[in-house]
Amino acid sequence: MPKFQTPRGTRDFLPEKMTRRQSVLDTLRSVFEKWGYEPLETPAFEDWALLSAKQGGGEEIKKEIFYFKDKGGRELGLRFDLTIPLARVIANNPQLPKPFKRYAIGRVWRYDEPQAGRYREFWQADVDIVGSPESEADAEIMAVACEALLVLGFEQFEVRVSDRRILDSFVKSLGVKEPVKVFRAIDKLEKAGEEQVRSELRKAGLGAGQVTEIMRFIAVKSMEQLRSLVSSDEMREALAELDSVLAAMKGYGYSTYVRADMSLVRGLEYYTGPVFEIKVGAGRLSIGGGGRYDGLIQLLGGKATPATGISFGVERLVDIMEAEKMLELPKTKTSVFVAGAGDVRPAVLKAAKELRRAGISCEYDVMQRDLGKQLQYVNAKGVPYALIIGEKEAKEGIYRLRNMKTGEEKLLKTVEEIAQMI
Amino acid sequence: MPKFQTPRGTRDFLPEKMTRRQSVLDTLRSVFEKWGYEPLETPAFEDWALLSAKQGGGEEIKKEIFYFKDKGGRELGLRFDLTIPLARVIANNPQLPKPFKRYAIGRVWRYDEPQAGRYREFWQADVDIVGSPESEADAEIMAVACEALLVLGFEQFEVRVSDRRILDSFVKSLGVKEPVKVFRAIDKLEKAGEEQVRSELRKAGLGAGQVTEIMRFIAVKSMEQLRSLVSSDEMREALAELDSVLAAMKGYGYSTYVRADMSLVRGLEYYTGPVFEIKVGAGRLSIGGGGRYDGLIQLLGGKATPATGISFGVERLVDIMEAEKMLELPKTKTSVFVAGAGDVRPAVLKAAKELRRAGISCEYDVMQRDLGKQLQYVNAKGVPYALIIGEKEAKEGIYRLRNMKTGEEKLLKTVEEIAQMI
Repeated sequence: MPKFQTPRGTRDFLPEKMTRRQSVLDTLRSVFEKWGYEPLETPAFEDWALLSAKQGGGEEIKKEIFYFKDKGGRELGLRFDLTIPLARVIANNPQLPKPFKRYAIGRVWRYDEPQAGRYREFWQADVDIVGSPESEADAEIMAVACEALLVLGFEQFEVRVSDRRILDSFVKSLGVKEPVKVFRAIDKLEKAGEEQVRSELRKAGLGAGQVTEIMRFIAVKSMEQLRSLVSSDEMREALAELDSVLAAMKGYGYSTYVRADMSLVRGLEYYTGPVFEIKVGAGRLSIGGGGRYDGLIQLLGGKATPATGISFGVERLVDIMEAEKMLELPKTKTSVFVAGAGDVRPAVLKAAKELRRAGISCEYDVMQRDLGKQLQYVNAKGVPYALIIGEKEAKEGIYRLRNMKTGEEKLLKTVEEIAQMI
Repeated sequence: MPKFQTPRGTRDFLPEKMTRRQSVLDTLRSVFEKWGYEPLETPAFEDWALLSAKQGGGEEIKKEIFYFKDKGGRELGLRFDLTIPLARVIANNPQLPKPFKRYAIGRVWRYDEPQAGRYREFWQADVDIVGSPESEADAEIMAVACEALLVLGFEQFEVRVSDRRILDSFVKSLGVKEPVKVFRAIDKLEKAGEEQVRSELRKAGLGAGQVTEIMRFIAVKSMEQLRSLVSSDEMREALAELDSVLAAMKGYGYSTYVRADMSLVRGLEYYTGPVFEIKVGAGRLSIGGGGRYDGLIQLLGGKATPATGISFGVERLVDIMEAEKMLELPKTKTSVFVAGAGDVRPAVLKAAKELRRAGISCEYDVMQRDLGKQLQYVNAKGVPYALIIGEKEAKEGIYRLRNMKTGEEKLLKTVEEIAQMI
């Protein structure tokens, strides 16, 4: 048993795993930047009053915050998402030009009960557009998410989209008093199944007729079906906006990935318009979601400012990509080990310097090991090539490059030749 | 007054600033990876027992830890450096091949009194070699640090190096009972000056003769001077090792940046051999330091394992580089804004897609603004080029590229031509 372990719900990422994670994060960042999103970094902890602001995350989330006091008695908490900090930044910096398009990739913390694929410390990767009330903004958020998944190598995925106001007005039209309870029940559809939703709706005080109507409504999977159920001006308006989001998506060529789904409510309570969720692969696992939250920035002390965004769950993405063998990277990022035999240190350091200058990552012995031990390490670490320099090679100024997999060796004269081989 | 501010001692990094920070972090990462260091990520918080383990950070550091309990009553704390978590990982994963060369770039937290350039949340960038007791490892750590500074663009910097055991045995040879108190006093030399050190040494119970001897010793700035003061076998041995570190540095061609300095003790108590500190610029500001800590991994429950490493203070680095105008980046990473006038949405989205495919970051309107408003935004954001697509351009399949600085416009036919212009 180790003397000290990682705290419950947290993990270390050893280099092999971390390299895979980094490649995912690097891809996301590069897509986000190509779409004109800019980085914003905020503190790991925030004022407790901010994190627990009612609509911030709802009552549920408060139980999940890591709470602490600083030595001055100030109440703080570790951030549980990247959206609340963004909204605070916008509230505090009205000078920022709009739309403000930002990405953020970082840790968040929730005091969940740890289970497979669920941790107390995890990473999110978010893109948001602040300042635009237009459907084009929602569509772009979905489009950049689609592009990110395509660049990561996903072929099968689905962006489910709905609009909180459609369900909202439908539920109200049924005369339901506490729509939030209905949303919570519906939110459990995928995990708990239809029977459970029915039972929760009954528990929330709905009559059998209301329950049947709601179950029929959330089974809707197309805009045509939906149109046939429209019953109020409010619904018609919300529907028109969802139509316009879907129309704006067409321009990107990603419409095949998108479908309307009225069972989508999303857990958090701050959404005010379109909401989306993305599922990948045959297993239809959710890897992220988001939506429009036009009320949040004002709630946190800013001017009324529309905003929409999406959040990827990095752990989920990486776990699925690993399971699907989409991240088959070499064990190490180091390409070459410069192995010395005999009194050849200057030649080893010179070769390493030239390799690095040519952009090739390399290392060499720092343990005073003989050649055999050095090559054992090269194998253990999975470095693909060894550049072997004995006293003869050092004297003649040549390099012996060994492919560690095949054992094949080549005699080379310049670093350029090496760069071409590997 | 904003309704919610960042917690005391923490900051937001808005995009312009964050982009400069990222460029520094990206450079560090790329140098570290070229030298064969691999990424390791550990949780933001650790067991309180680990963080407060006696030699971990000494008594001083305990006062600076953000301490909290999880809901199960477990005592936790935010990590205050990246070395203790590394040592824990090594202790818990004896299977990792040695040497284990890792880098880590991330947040750490200390409950310091905030002041200019000092924050409660800050970033460190570390490289460490675990498993090698050899001087080559210490030398490589210093060499990779030198290379990182050169690649960042620093011309003036100085790596001061010492060995705890030299000072240790010298102080013992004077008959001093509590050497730690002497080290603490000496550590204040730069900030508080000679008089303060003398006074603290007297307060620690040293006689006038002892104080004089120590002040003379820490004024030593060369190995020759140092050799003339050697008085015991223990000192001779430590001196030989420092000699061998300096000799190993020669191979890298960075010897001009390195000098021995016996006044260097480094605050943390876990160092067991060579220690280093790096100062940059004419102002000689410390931007990082480190040393050998052969006892730490065993203390944390692992096998006795030698280790050496260095830590850069990211805030310091960025602050100095900004002050020295070494980070004159564009205001935004976005190169082109595709501006549409009229009913040209499909042409705008198509141009954006092609630009991205060519590796050019771009954005376009998501606010239904007219051309004038779009160009106002382009100027406010500092995007260097606008690609203007009116109905005429859309119909004829041409692009009008405007240099926003000069106002100059070019008519272009392909994205390749655009890529060459910007």
